[in-house]
Amino acid sequence: MDQETARDLATAARVATLATITPEGHPHLVPCCFVLDGDTIYTAVDAKPKTTMALRRLENLRTNPACSLLVHHYDEDWTELWWVRVDGMGRVVEGGQERERALELLAGKYEQYRTVPIPGDVVAVEVERWRGWP
Amino acid sequence: MDQETARDLATAARVATLATITPEGHPHLVPCCFVLDGDTIYTAVDAKPKTTMALRRLENLRTNPACSLLVHHYDEDWTELWWVRVDGMGRVVEGGQERERALELLAGKYEQYRTVPIPGDVVAVEVERWRGWP
Repeated sequence: MDQETARDLATAARVATLATITPEGHPHLVPCCFVLDGDTIYTAVDAKPKTTMALRRLENLRTNPACSLLVHHYDEDWTELWWVRVDGMGRVVEGGQERERALELLAGKYEQYRTVPIPGDVVAVEVERWRGWP
Repeated sequence: MDQETARDLATAARVATLATITPEGHPHLVPCCFVLDGDTIYTAVDAKPKTTMALRRLENLRTNPACSLLVHHYDEDWTELWWVRVDGMGRVVEGGQERERALELLAGKYEQYRTVPIPGDVVAVEVERWRGWP
């Protein structure tokens, strides 16, 4: 899969899985909504009931910025399977213009964010590598 | 979410995302088919075109057995979202009775494995912790 196709599939995808690494060195996974802005991916910590887990994700990134996001399609016809993975470095965007821009982009992609406010932090992932299959 | 519900959702799920850690300490993600057998999850390295990537996954586990699997449901109605995550330790099952059993279980769950042989290795993940949301 070429990088343009990978980008197109990632742009259209509604959900990704974000992997970070805990301070103990264990992988940590969470599904997330996200938006692609050039070579930056933004995702928001978006629901109060998830507060403890959301904090874990932020704490992981502050300790170790290495992270990865996967979007994929599953189909019972296995000739239709595909996935796109980005590897990069994550950081917490706690405020300012970048946060405002990220929230605007997220609300532009997800109608749900127009009625449900995003109370938490925004995470930015600077993409270093695209991978896709097939 | 209680553990029984998490188990039921994981048992019924057709695909998971497997996270391992590369020797360089970066998270590595790949979607995978899997089957739950008590507190062990089996997944197979199943397609020749993925060989290089499959080897990466196996190499990661040999270097660092810490891994995690996520299954989740996305819906545009965000009140319908859920996810189940298992954290555990992975190992490569290279042959013997355990491999035979894993292949039987996988073929029992996935009709596709009855016609497409599984040429590669089987990975076993010993589950240490279940997490589910909501």
